[in-house]
Amino acid sequence: MAKQERAVRTRRLILEAAGAVFDEFGYESTTIAQILARAGVTKGALYFHFASKEELARGVLDQALTLEGILPQESRLQEWVDVGMVLAHRLPAEPLLSASVRLSADRKARDLFGTSWPAWIDFIAGQLAEAKAQGEVLPHVDPGATATLFVGAWTGVEILATAHDESGALEKRIALLYDTFLPGIAVPGALRNLDTSPDRGARVWKLHQAQHHARQEEAAAATA
Amino acid sequence: MAKQERAVRTRRLILEAAGAVFDEFGYESTTIAQILARAGVTKGALYFHFASKEELARGVLDQALTLEGILPQESRLQEWVDVGMVLAHRLPAEPLLSASVRLSADRKARDLFGTSWPAWIDFIAGQLAEAKAQGEVLPHVDPGATATLFVGAWTGVEILATAHDESGALEKRIALLYDTFLPGIAVPGALRNLDTSPDRGARVWKLHQAQHHARQEEAAAATA
Repeated sequence: MAKQERAVRTRRLILEAAGAVFDEFGYESTTIAQILARAGVTKGALYFHFASKEELARGVLDQALTLEGILPQESRLQEWVDVGMVLAHRLPAEPLLSASVRLSADRKARDLFGTSWPAWIDFIAGQLAEAKAQGEVLPHVDPGATATLFVGAWTGVEILATAHDESGALEKRIALLYDTFLPGIAVPGALRNLDTSPDRGARVWKLHQAQHHARQEEAAAATA
Repeated sequence: MAKQERAVRTRRLILEAAGAVFDEFGYESTTIAQILARAGVTKGALYFHFASKEELARGVLDQALTLEGILPQESRLQEWVDVGMVLAHRLPAEPLLSASVRLSADRKARDLFGTSWPAWIDFIAGQLAEAKAQGEVLPHVDPGATATLFVGAWTGVEILATAHDESGALEKRIALLYDTFLPGIAVPGALRNLDTSPDRGARVWKLHQAQHHARQEEAAAATA
């Protein structure tokens, strides 16, 4: 493995450990020693990448809003559904995502670093505004207020689902969140064609991974 | 003031201080010394009421699910709206309510004490089941799953609103949560008559307080 690639992996390993420990104990109670123990790296390696607990938390939050995996769709509402469903699919398996939700909800961490919410709200407000421009959204719906509401609701539904820990619970509950929100947001014609089944996130993510892999192979073949 | 009444007030003062400190620092980081300083009571007074930080947290959570202020309505859906709107009205002014939401969302505290969610979910599931029985709810709606979804969404919307701290924000956002949920839940005829305006909670709460006060005066007059 090239030296640089190894550094990238170590950095990610440390962030994942930090995410898991922040997630479990909260920002304030977490110590660097706990993160070191979880990551299984040396103190030198950790401090090479991150000077302090604050920097570790910022690193986790920077990974937060990943919109990777959203494929373009004719319906902007379907893309909005896909954002929340792909995240619901990925979160239980990715400690960095779940830690960033937790850090945003942690009052102490939030006062220090802000949250990943504003970027997420802006993104969804943009999707809803585009959906409205192409006639998919009811006239009285305010894209900004609805995006803020949705990000809050998504976050709370995730917190409760994680607290109760059934497998697949998050995808089912987020699917129900969309099914409950959509009749208040979408025009009936747009509603009919939306796919909000609980496995939507898994399918979109799998397709995205396959396309990503194919592009990588193509690039490798081109340089061979 | 009678001795007993003084003890009840001191207990409440300590719980409110504990709630505010848990709310600010999280369960794990909070110390008894911080709660003492906030409450302005002696160590002796605190330990007379609560033997430990754990007991203080349980005390806060026991205060959590207060359904006080819900007046009977012909429409069960209106009562469901009133639960969430009265809570949205009261929470910003009552540290115990906001602390109990925070303690439920705090992973460490949750592992130790459980949360106030199950009781809240059961109550709302009961309201939705009654609303369904009297024909106010769409046939495909599952009262239990919808109650769980709603409590999660309410919690997350509260967490985001508190993080951003505009006054009156919570009542506006919870009103929008109902407006967005209801078309996916209520039959159109029931929907038309519901009052979901942002000041609904304040009005219902004021009326409840007035009735409560009147009953107290009546009781006092009867014993005079």
